[in-house]
Amino acid sequence: MTETKRVQVEEHILSINDELAAGLRTRLDAAGVFAINLMASPGGGKTSLILRTVEALKDDLRLAAVDGDVVPVDVEKIATQGIQVELINTGGSCHLEAHMLSPALDRIDLDAVDLLIVENVGNLICPASFQLGTHANVVIASIPEGDDKPYKYPTMFRGADVLLLNKIDYLAVQEFDIDYFRRGVEALNEGLTFFPVSCRTGEGLEAWYDWLREQVRKTTAGSAEARELVQGS
Amino acid sequence: MTETKRVQVEEHILSINDELAAGLRTRLDAAGVFAINLMASPGGGKTSLILRTVEALKDDLRLAAVDGDVVPVDVEKIATQGIQVELINTGGSCHLEAHMLSPALDRIDLDAVDLLIVENVGNLICPASFQLGTHANVVIASIPEGDDKPYKYPTMFRGADVLLLNKIDYLAVQEFDIDYFRRGVEALNEGLTFFPVSCRTGEGLEAWYDWLREQVRKTTAGSAEARELVQGS
Repeated sequence: MTETKRVQVEEHILSINDELAAGLRTRLDAAGVFAINLMASPGGGKTSLILRTVEALKDDLRLAAVDGDVVPVDVEKIATQGIQVELINTGGSCHLEAHMLSPALDRIDLDAVDLLIVENVGNLICPASFQLGTHANVVIASIPEGDDKPYKYPTMFRGADVLLLNKIDYLAVQEFDIDYFRRGVEALNEGLTFFPVSCRTGEGLEAWYDWLREQVRKTTAGSAEARELVQGS
Repeated sequence: MTETKRVQVEEHILSINDELAAGLRTRLDAAGVFAINLMASPGGGKTSLILRTVEALKDDLRLAAVDGDVVPVDVEKIATQGIQVELINTGGSCHLEAHMLSPALDRIDLDAVDLLIVENVGNLICPASFQLGTHANVVIASIPEGDDKPYKYPTMFRGADVLLLNKIDYLAVQEFDIDYFRRGVEALNEGLTFFPVSCRTGEGLEAWYDWLREQVRKTTAGSAEARELVQGS
């Protein structure tokens, strides 16, 4: 296959994906679900953040999760928190695509969910290129990965709506130039919502929970307004 | 595109890649170069390991490096060590392929190189599927990523010839069940060469340098023998 042909194939895959993602967004909106696409390197803290978030919010909000993975290790961990979690076996793919998410959503009663967390595959590159119909791209970077990550994986940081800098408790034992990191992020994505946190100690997580609560509140309000408009018309 | 068609396209790409990789191997062997394909998560320590390795071996061996990346941050760091380093701009691809390595090799005088280090893109999934013609797959895992990585990214660990467990100095501040990690690795890849190291403190790296010296010695000896056979025939 020539390089040109290959690029055409890739563009074709991306455009089909975007169409499917738009359909998923419509489904989520109709059910009044706020959904996030959670992305990070392997070991950045995606599952730890989900466990903490579910623990903090499950009494107030109706939560569900979807986990893109080769093996169900994380699904089992999340299920111990007592929420519905669906595995998407990516079959070795390095990212989720909209067509993989669709059958997982079929297995969830979306009308009974306020917040849906989609855990993407551990990878800072390809997940950035595939929309899933979710409302926010949430990226986790972590202190041990080093302060140069925005410079090395620009597409991921450019496409983020929210950035969590995890494992800030490691700042006690590791050099990490937060200003250099922030400058790299700001150059790509000015005014990005940013939460420095530690999923191990819990530091900084309240602000993240508040942000989620606010998004769910807006989604629920918007959904009720839409229903009134439909009923009133 | 149907799923079947897509799988066919992917298999076609892989088979072309393997053919090109075999050609690169022949080139490396003819020049008496021992080459490694270095893979890890983002922030796992690929560049740190290269910097340490070059510093330790550059007086004894003739070294060169190739770096697969979107931006030349690491290339600039490695170049400060005074060895030749070539950038492969992957154009956003999440892994190196043989056709990307080939033009980088054209720019290196392989006859003047003993050890070639190819730094792959930071990713634990796709790089495992694309042979590059190198002699050894070297995978770095690191303590902060967590002890479950072999279970979550089996293809990468199955295909490794050498595994370095980096950042062992973090064992002082983080829970990490080394037995659980090793059992996961052994189940996938029995008898794998394993080096626990810290690129920050230097701990454990001597064994890794010795392993590299031994591979280069064998390659040089094999290459001399081949030349004698050719000259004697």
